[in-house]
Amino acid sequence: MTLERTGVDRGAQPVRITDVAALAGVSIGTASKALNGTGQLRDSTRARVKDAAEKLGFVGDARARALSSGRTYTVGMITTDSFGRFSIPVLLGAEDALSAGQMAVLLCDTRDDHVREAHYLRSLAARGVDGIIVTGRSADARPPIDVSIPVVYAFTPSTSADDVSITLDDEAGSAAVAAHVLTLGRSRVAVVTGPSRHRSAERRVAGAASVLGSRLVTPPLFGEWSERWGRQAVDVLARQSPDVDAIVCGSDQIARGVCDRLRELGRSVPGDVAVTGFDDWDVMALASRPPLTTVDLRLEELGRVAGQALLGLIDGGAAASASVAPALVIRESTAGP
Amino acid sequence: MTLERTGVDRGAQPVRITDVAALAGVSIGTASKALNGTGQLRDSTRARVKDAAEKLGFVGDARARALSSGRTYTVGMITTDSFGRFSIPVLLGAEDALSAGQMAVLLCDTRDDHVREAHYLRSLAARGVDGIIVTGRSADARPPIDVSIPVVYAFTPSTSADDVSITLDDEAGSAAVAAHVLTLGRSRVAVVTGPSRHRSAERRVAGAASVLGSRLVTPPLFGEWSERWGRQAVDVLARQSPDVDAIVCGSDQIARGVCDRLRELGRSVPGDVAVTGFDDWDVMALASRPPLTTVDLRLEELGRVAGQALLGLIDGGAAASASVAPALVIRESTAGP
Repeated sequence: MTLERTGVDRGAQPVRITDVAALAGVSIGTASKALNGTGQLRDSTRARVKDAAEKLGFVGDARARALSSGRTYTVGMITTDSFGRFSIPVLLGAEDALSAGQMAVLLCDTRDDHVREAHYLRSLAARGVDGIIVTGRSADARPPIDVSIPVVYAFTPSTSADDVSITLDDEAGSAAVAAHVLTLGRSRVAVVTGPSRHRSAERRVAGAASVLGSRLVTPPLFGEWSERWGRQAVDVLARQSPDVDAIVCGSDQIARGVCDRLRELGRSVPGDVAVTGFDDWDVMALASRPPLTTVDLRLEELGRVAGQALLGLIDGGAAASASVAPALVIRESTAGP
Repeated sequence: MTLERTGVDRGAQPVRITDVAALAGVSIGTASKALNGTGQLRDSTRARVKDAAEKLGFVGDARARALSSGRTYTVGMITTDSFGRFSIPVLLGAEDALSAGQMAVLLCDTRDDHVREAHYLRSLAARGVDGIIVTGRSADARPPIDVSIPVVYAFTPSTSADDVSITLDDEAGSAAVAAHVLTLGRSRVAVVTGPSRHRSAERRVAGAASVLGSRLVTPPLFGEWSERWGRQAVDVLARQSPDVDAIVCGSDQIARGVCDRLRELGRSVPGDVAVTGFDDWDVMALASRPPLTTVDLRLEELGRVAGQALLGLIDGGAAASASVAPALVIRESTAGP
């Protein structure tokens, strides 16, 4: 049972569990167990506590609290991403912010299925949730959902500028990593990234190019988000631009493939070629040989910001779209011996 | 029942059960029974009401339904695993089963923090959830939670035999992969796995050893769940048992490291040495060179079984502990050229 006061000022002083415990002549712990139906207590003790709670009008029960406030203290989180590498940290950050705001979170995994999404939206409406967070696996914008309660889009923005979308600042992250490469004294840099149709690939290239300028020795190589593409890109570069001294990659998977292939070709990282990733995905960035300098997406922070924005909207305040800047993480692939 | 329309024209009046009843040509009571699945009605009547409800976009209010049934149609899912590689598929499978049972799922991530877990249990009790699923990142048993509603443990079992725990049959998975290795004609097999204190490491070894018998040329090598340990283990085997012709690994990460190191030593996979993983974790199993024969944990299925068990308990039925057998997935690391 949640035993907090609900809100700052709902009229008279709310009754507290301490009041209930005092009236029943038991400890707070015992009162809590009695009201929650947990623990080993005598029936008579349980009954005495419940009587006291009733006499005082104690509202510890979330359902009662919901009825009295017209709110359900429940928020829906809709994700299209069953795999979860991107959406799960976002969900966790949002859940952190929302549970601090006494909100319970209903998880709705739509699996990229429009029918399933529509079903969930009806179900959330029927449950009277106070708001919805929408997330997904892609940074590409998606059409807004059609509901009349507060909604915040996290990581995956809405196509509507009227909506509140909290996104990742890919350009800033990529600019930071490119600037780091220049501070190492590298001057013949290549960029290897994912498919050009992906907003994140395109924006990461833009961020890096803005910093690298003429130090970019070849047009960005667009391919796929895979280690294999990283290995293939090294072969392309070995023919086209054999004097490259740094490779800025659009993901950790690509960077790991780049490192593997460079090693196979007898080129040292970072001695001959500095390599950077993007994502700070531990199983890639730390398992890479050498471990990768990369960009931490700070997705939990992004989720937290989204959760706080939603709490603000639910409380009747305003919230604006924002982007969260990722953080440079320096490891051996640029800073090694 | 409160009757709200979700969907396009939400500015319009919400659809009411009177509208549904009128369109179907039945009384309000009959319409209500048809939509709630209660009462004695002809199938054709029920179908007519449902058609009418669908045409009008009628959505019954879950809160009203909850009040009238004494249930909240809400289930808590508690996970200790913020990273989510194991727990998220379990959660998704459970959510799939539960949402088919009209249950909404409250996500509670305890982050391995007892205080946080206690907080969530109080919050779930306060919300009157109908049941709880407990999961986590480890297959090692955990102490039961102290609540008086139905609970099912998924992947991470309860230490109490009185509880319903749905677990992974590690031994069966490992026995299947060992049997596959023997069908390839391999006869000098090594096992490389994670820490011996982990139940899953120990049980996977037991499953493999039961099938391999004297074909196991060296005692199992226990280490860590990492690619690095896989690479190191190959060096150990190169000294101790250079004639090994198959290496059965306790995880895909280990197997990937094994493949990498074998390649570096000029040994072909599977030509010289067949290699198997465990987990079917795509970023490891598919990115490995060659791609790994491995064991699909079927965690979504495990979650689904757990969700169905919980639905059974909530409906007042019985449910028993069970284990889900993982499935062998054959790829190039054993079946290649």
